[in-house]
Amino acid sequence: MIGDVVNKIGETVSLSGWISTRRDHGKIMFLDLRDRTGLVQIVSNKSLADTKPEDCVEITGVVKKRPEAMINTKIATGTVEIEAQTITILSKATELPFPLDTDGRDINEEIKLKYRYLDLRRDRMQKNIRLRSKVVDLIRQYLFKNEFTEIETPLLTKSTPEGSRDFLVPSRMQPGNFYALPQSPQQYKQLLMVAGFERYFQIARCLRDEDLRADRGFEHTQLDLEMSFVEREDVMNIIEEMVTSVVEILGGTIKQKPFPVISYKDAIAKYGADKFDLRSEEEKKKGIHAFAWVVDFPFFEKDKEGKWTYSHNPFSDPKQEHKDAFLKGQVEGILTTQYDLVWNGYEAGGGSIRSTDPAILTKVFETIGHTKEQIEKQFGHMLKAFSYGVPPHGGIALGIERFLMCLTGETSIKDVQAFPQTSSGQTSVMDAPSAVSDEQLMELGITLRKRVKQTSVFKDITTLLDESHITYKTYQHEAVFTSQDAAKVRNTNMHQGAKALIMYADGNPIMVVVPGDMKVDTKGFKELYQVRDLRMATSEEVEQVTCVLIGAVPPFGNIFQIPLYVDQRLRENEEIVFNAGEHTKSIQMKETDFEKVAKPIVGEFTK
Amino acid sequence: MIGDVVNKIGETVSLSGWISTRRDHGKIMFLDLRDRTGLVQIVSNKSLADTKPEDCVEITGVVKKRPEAMINTKIATGTVEIEAQTITILSKATELPFPLDTDGRDINEEIKLKYRYLDLRRDRMQKNIRLRSKVVDLIRQYLFKNEFTEIETPLLTKSTPEGSRDFLVPSRMQPGNFYALPQSPQQYKQLLMVAGFERYFQIARCLRDEDLRADRGFEHTQLDLEMSFVEREDVMNIIEEMVTSVVEILGGTIKQKPFPVISYKDAIAKYGADKFDLRSEEEKKKGIHAFAWVVDFPFFEKDKEGKWTYSHNPFSDPKQEHKDAFLKGQVEGILTTQYDLVWNGYEAGGGSIRSTDPAILTKVFETIGHTKEQIEKQFGHMLKAFSYGVPPHGGIALGIERFLMCLTGETSIKDVQAFPQTSSGQTSVMDAPSAVSDEQLMELGITLRKRVKQTSVFKDITTLLDESHITYKTYQHEAVFTSQDAAKVRNTNMHQGAKALIMYADGNPIMVVVPGDMKVDTKGFKELYQVRDLRMATSEEVEQVTCVLIGAVPPFGNIFQIPLYVDQRLRENEEIVFNAGEHTKSIQMKETDFEKVAKPIVGEFTK
Repeated sequence: MIGDVVNKIGETVSLSGWISTRRDHGKIMFLDLRDRTGLVQIVSNKSLADTKPEDCVEITGVVKKRPEAMINTKIATGTVEIEAQTITILSKATELPFPLDTDGRDINEEIKLKYRYLDLRRDRMQKNIRLRSKVVDLIRQYLFKNEFTEIETPLLTKSTPEGSRDFLVPSRMQPGNFYALPQSPQQYKQLLMVAGFERYFQIARCLRDEDLRADRGFEHTQLDLEMSFVEREDVMNIIEEMVTSVVEILGGTIKQKPFPVISYKDAIAKYGADKFDLRSEEEKKKGIHAFAWVVDFPFFEKDKEGKWTYSHNPFSDPKQEHKDAFLKGQVEGILTTQYDLVWNGYEAGGGSIRSTDPAILTKVFETIGHTKEQIEKQFGHMLKAFSYGVPPHGGIALGIERFLMCLTGETSIKDVQAFPQTSSGQTSVMDAPSAVSDEQLMELGITLRKRVKQTSVFKDITTLLDESHITYKTYQHEAVFTSQDAAKVRNTNMHQGAKALIMYADGNPIMVVVPGDMKVDTKGFKELYQVRDLRMATSEEVEQVTCVLIGAVPPFGNIFQIPLYVDQRLRENEEIVFNAGEHTKSIQMKETDFEKVAKPIVGEFTK
Repeated sequence: MIGDVVNKIGETVSLSGWISTRRDHGKIMFLDLRDRTGLVQIVSNKSLADTKPEDCVEITGVVKKRPEAMINTKIATGTVEIEAQTITILSKATELPFPLDTDGRDINEEIKLKYRYLDLRRDRMQKNIRLRSKVVDLIRQYLFKNEFTEIETPLLTKSTPEGSRDFLVPSRMQPGNFYALPQSPQQYKQLLMVAGFERYFQIARCLRDEDLRADRGFEHTQLDLEMSFVEREDVMNIIEEMVTSVVEILGGTIKQKPFPVISYKDAIAKYGADKFDLRSEEEKKKGIHAFAWVVDFPFFEKDKEGKWTYSHNPFSDPKQEHKDAFLKGQVEGILTTQYDLVWNGYEAGGGSIRSTDPAILTKVFETIGHTKEQIEKQFGHMLKAFSYGVPPHGGIALGIERFLMCLTGETSIKDVQAFPQTSSGQTSVMDAPSAVSDEQLMELGITLRKRVKQTSVFKDITTLLDESHITYKTYQHEAVFTSQDAAKVRNTNMHQGAKALIMYADGNPIMVVVPGDMKVDTKGFKELYQVRDLRMATSEEVEQVTCVLIGAVPPFGNIFQIPLYVDQRLRENEEIVFNAGEHTKSIQMKETDFEKVAKPIVGEFTK
């Protein structure tokens, strides 16, 4: 291997790898050969083989010491070079879709992930993925030393109404019923405490069907851990020791040990948030790490609709001194045993001591609006399990991707996963999600809704525009459901967004299009067009009329065979932009071209 | 912890754990206390606390040396006992659903897995799950020492038409499209070789929607491994060294080292199979392990319909000396680079050197019946990836559950997984698969087929029987689709199976019931009932008429409002049995009771 050659001066070696760069000097060429252990310079007569970057080759040659002046201090093998005797091309590389000698950050994501196997050859990605393997191993070894058992919990599990949205898996043996993929192994790890394992961990894959962001993919991995016969500080101590050990083994420096512990109240007062970066600008530049624990969170908070919801985890125990008040009905001001680990301003993980008292658990679920029946149906198995000698227990979950991002300074989860999904949920390299056969659906007892027709509405529009020889621009972006979000992801202004609404005018569906930042003046519209009754369509009606989901309807009445009314003020835009039948696709075009094709009735009816 | 007490004679210790057993001696009671490190005897005055088996307790007391005569050599702490000073009951246990002091093999599976958290307290299960953690760690440490990188590959991936049946996951962002859960990371690990990782492994969760057996669950875990710049023997050697090292560290003895290598042809000639146990009866009794490699398998075999299919893996390379013949069209007799590891008569794993030549890969897929278009659509991304400097590579997969089963002698995969599915695909402890909300289905763009009504056909029947005060017996079993399989899982004979067929008599649906081992004599039936045209319903028609899937139709015409004809010979059974609307549920009842409720037209029309 290339990593060994510096110790083999004078010897003939055989190396396999990839050509990284090639520099021609007449008949002689200099190649950089790369394998998993590093880079080395090859000196070769061109007659041996005409290799190009990224060809996979096997080279035999003699290791020579470089003259003092030629030493390259930038690579580990810079004191030597290989004088090639034979070069065998194992496999040629055709032209690459993007260069590999940059950090790759500026490459379009779709292209980058389509050719992820090439992107991963990049030095930065090789380091990140190898570091991840190392970090997870260090975590495991620390926990094994502390007598933890690693236990795998199921991927096919039960759908729960808590937390985020579940990914569902239709059951073939019980058509019409579904498994859910786990958002976390929370319940299983608590059951493992009931089972007497006392110290459990897992490097657990978790799945959440949430809209994607830079720091959130459909899949992430977490260190999931639970301990019996412990109090809050026991879990915090073991995690603190573990994190410290991993960071320091990897050469990191930690600003303050032991980690400061701050109450939620103090954190809000002092930093305005429960995540904060304790480092000075200089410490940040030096790559120093700062950790802190935040504790004493309120157990409950109010959601948008003013209803109580848990702030972190419904299975947590309230603080001992608040239990009585909570059981008596107090909600505001009840604190939880939750602890969050903050790392360089990010939430690196969180956990709590769990409630093992059925009265408290029931009260928690009642507080967040569950009926007794719902509690029994959703969590009856947990309450039952706790009736067989449950040990006091608590645990934590730390995001592995977040851990790597904090270590490396990467800001996208995609840069610390081997094969992430694109922002629109497409898999790397392979074309999924994709259509499946009718037989597969039949076996699972499901059929597709009519609205899947929407995938072709986009095609209908582009066909219409192409046939009319109109120039337009398409966007592929994350799913958006409001004019505001749409403008944001497209980086357009709201006024040029053509908002297409389905309305019922005296019982008949029509399409009304207004600028994205404006509203239909119902009264004005009725007067203008002599309509007695005008109302918005329901989302079901929108689907019925257009086969398109609400929020993705394009401003073409003719595609759906309904009359089209466009507000005058849309003409204030030279170009307009709109969702083209899908929440993830937009089209931009000249307003005049739009009118040419869509042939609307134009009037003034906005406010 | 209990494991430490033998070194603490005379000291006061505090121990937390579970009461394993209790023996009363008047005012004194002897308790066995259990924690994750072992058992110890507690001597306690009953006045301290009235504890019962499986209560979770904290006990403080003094460690005393036992008199010579009282030493218990069966437990590690048998030389001491604890004289209790305080006993705190942390959590009481209500009556257990089954005993924990047996090996638990005779307990009904549904009950056992419903209370899996108790079943896991059992000594045998604790050992198996802890051993699993240890084995996987030993595997990992061996591979890290050999410079492998552990890399996670995605769970949400593409459905492929190869191998077993995929579990599907509906996409919310692209309604109507589906991800598939991975049957193995085969393609990703090969892409990691293209990416230049050279030595990859993963302890990978794999999912297959197959009918369940003792040695197969929906989920299993495999050591998945791939290496670049290797030949067959390189992979075999590293795996052989790894397996040897793990088995021997755990105290096992291996019959023959290095492992014998046998060709498929010789194995069939000598043992009649490609899996064989090389041990004598005595070696088996001693727990000695025997391994062997099987190589030189035929690449292709004929399926039931006489079509060529690959014997192991379509991505494998044919043996070098067979490539030309294969490319020229030969199929029979072409050998693959596949290697299988046989352990005590079981297939412990298998792998191969992969084909990196697009011509060969294309020929393989053509041979198994794919068109050029299908190959491009399904595997185009792999062929593309191989055009960018692909290294020669090969790998292997070893089942972790099989590894544990071979080590422990367990015969069910469920005994080496923490939370397995039941044989009917139900999750441990939690009630899944289960119904999901209409909103969830709506978001995913799917609807349930009408046939999900079937879940209530079972209820229709039991209600009907209950109201008629009839005694009957129900079976829950794995899904069956033929009379033969049904008889097998129910342990009934075929003749007493009431096979209900939907037929069309002169265009109208009727139900015809015959004994499971007999057929309708169409001609006889037509003559008997003066029918001109009689034909079997299609599966769609069966669904339409009964809302029940073909193969699960119960013999009650009245439930579906159609006429019912029963063959005379069904009366030869005192009791009859039938699938009750679902493939996984059967009902058994007296034939006379059946006629009382179903009110059939009885005649002779079988052959």
